[in-house]
Amino acid sequence: MGQRIVFPNAPRITAVSTIAGTKECEGILGSYVETPLSDDMFGESTFEKAECKMLSHVIDGAISNAGLTRGQVDMIVSGDLLNQIISASFAARDFSVPFLGVYGACSTMAESLAVAAAFVNAGYCKRVVAATGSHFASAERQYRYPLELGCTRPPQAQWTVTGAGASLVADKGEGVRIVSATLGKVVDFGVTDVNNMGAAMAPAAADTILAHFRETGEEPEAYDLIVTGDLGALGSRILKDLTWEKGLDISANHVDCGEIVYNVLEDEFQGGSGAGCSAVVLNSYLYAKMMAGTLRRILFVATGALLSTVSSGQGESIPCIAHAVTLER
Amino acid sequence: MGQRIVFPNAPRITAVSTIAGTKECEGILGSYVETPLSDDMFGESTFEKAECKMLSHVIDGAISNAGLTRGQVDMIVSGDLLNQIISASFAARDFSVPFLGVYGACSTMAESLAVAAAFVNAGYCKRVVAATGSHFASAERQYRYPLELGCTRPPQAQWTVTGAGASLVADKGEGVRIVSATLGKVVDFGVTDVNNMGAAMAPAAADTILAHFRETGEEPEAYDLIVTGDLGALGSRILKDLTWEKGLDISANHVDCGEIVYNVLEDEFQGGSGAGCSAVVLNSYLYAKMMAGTLRRILFVATGALLSTVSSGQGESIPCIAHAVTLER
Repeated sequence: MGQRIVFPNAPRITAVSTIAGTKECEGILGSYVETPLSDDMFGESTFEKAECKMLSHVIDGAISNAGLTRGQVDMIVSGDLLNQIISASFAARDFSVPFLGVYGACSTMAESLAVAAAFVNAGYCKRVVAATGSHFASAERQYRYPLELGCTRPPQAQWTVTGAGASLVADKGEGVRIVSATLGKVVDFGVTDVNNMGAAMAPAAADTILAHFRETGEEPEAYDLIVTGDLGALGSRILKDLTWEKGLDISANHVDCGEIVYNVLEDEFQGGSGAGCSAVVLNSYLYAKMMAGTLRRILFVATGALLSTVSSGQGESIPCIAHAVTLER
Repeated sequence: MGQRIVFPNAPRITAVSTIAGTKECEGILGSYVETPLSDDMFGESTFEKAECKMLSHVIDGAISNAGLTRGQVDMIVSGDLLNQIISASFAARDFSVPFLGVYGACSTMAESLAVAAAFVNAGYCKRVVAATGSHFASAERQYRYPLELGCTRPPQAQWTVTGAGASLVADKGEGVRIVSATLGKVVDFGVTDVNNMGAAMAPAAADTILAHFRETGEEPEAYDLIVTGDLGALGSRILKDLTWEKGLDISANHVDCGEIVYNVLEDEFQGGSGAGCSAVVLNSYLYAKMMAGTLRRILFVATGALLSTVSSGQGESIPCIAHAVTLER
């Protein structure tokens, strides 16, 4: 049946909410993020609890921005980067709402939006919250090294975004319509460098984007933007090369959330990453531009690297995935 | 809208496949499991790779048992207990099929079946594989202690099942119909003992079962069996008490997969657990009994404990979830 699922009933994002850390709000996002943090710990005693609180905060934010109460939401679809997606599960504990835990690493924003739209379009639910987030410090110590060790970062590295974003997907109301979802396959080009996520994820993004355009028969010009999640500067270049090789030139309207999330400073190298990267950019900047009519149609392609420290330690390469959703205003 | 989603087009499980370890096949499951292992390493060099290979094996098994090829499957929905669900992600790498990663700990079999049925019922997909598994040794070293340490197990402990199960959910054909799914909420009764999963998960199972019967208006007698995933002996007793307190007596037809998976031997204490527990029991013994007509209607309620070693280490209690699917022959 192909990879693309069409939603004729056009479930729509009627409200969003975002939160982001101090460093994230120094860039272009600063004026779009709903809750800019002055303290990346968000008043909590651990990084993990801060991450969970951020996620809970934006889920609540999306619900109240839609003028709803918790009891009016039919389902929460969420996941995150931490082992056993504890941020999402513990955040969901605060809400007495059916919960669907998903895992797609940094592709979670697109995956959760796709599942939410699928459930709303089919009439299973009327209002679903799709949300995800990440925290630089919890990701560093889980995936890499303790911050206290002060490790040098290689030039191909990215910086995990401290932030979270939530979308309220509803069956009716004013908002950004989710027209279709193109679900990705797991793609592994054999990259083993855990510091080079952009190179690992670019082939997965290319695979899903190529499938999307093959199945729709559209040209890239049909979209104001083709937005990837967190390939970073290097990964973004690789993606453009890979799609160009297959006869699809997306260079004119491709942008990567990881590239725009920070002011370009030396220590982020390739830009932002993490599940929170595309979640924050989509639900703040991009949503605002779509609601204002500046952007009318975008293909949102979040990419995830499906590795763990165990898989890398056992010599495995990095399988990746990308899911895409078509958003229209 | 309540927690229950009805599937009027009755997506059905047309084929299944299971694999289980040596210890698991000593019990009643031995004669029902499709692939009984003589070596729990399954020819691999690490426990994690063995777990991944088991999952890949049953996904392939379900596809070929349905008389299909990999290319005829529209989606794989899977997850597991390992950090970043590497078993599922790496297994999906072998298949060039859209992949939806889910995380619900030991509730994954019910969660993946619910999502698969939701997508097939809505016409998004024609054939979806729902699968999960676990491995005793990979779970022990990730969640507890290295096996080499030879730790004593407390009497309330359970034994993670080495095994995997897959269901092929299709829009037509002969099989077991998935009539509805009741999605669970995250429930936390404040249990902090990571060795007592049964006590932690029983309130979540009770919450979902009570919601199911409240929304359907049915009596427990409407089901030949109300099957929970892996509460174990103690958790099963707690569940019966909790539902009885709320006026629902399920004692006559409740059974727990964790209680029936092993011959009762001293070292499993409360019985089996792990995502593979309910996956193997459902897709071998229960499926066979349903296809033979011995069981005509069951409520399958898989339960998951959404903790991580980090959350427990930070003093958090154990939030749990249970999802239920109604299966009919």
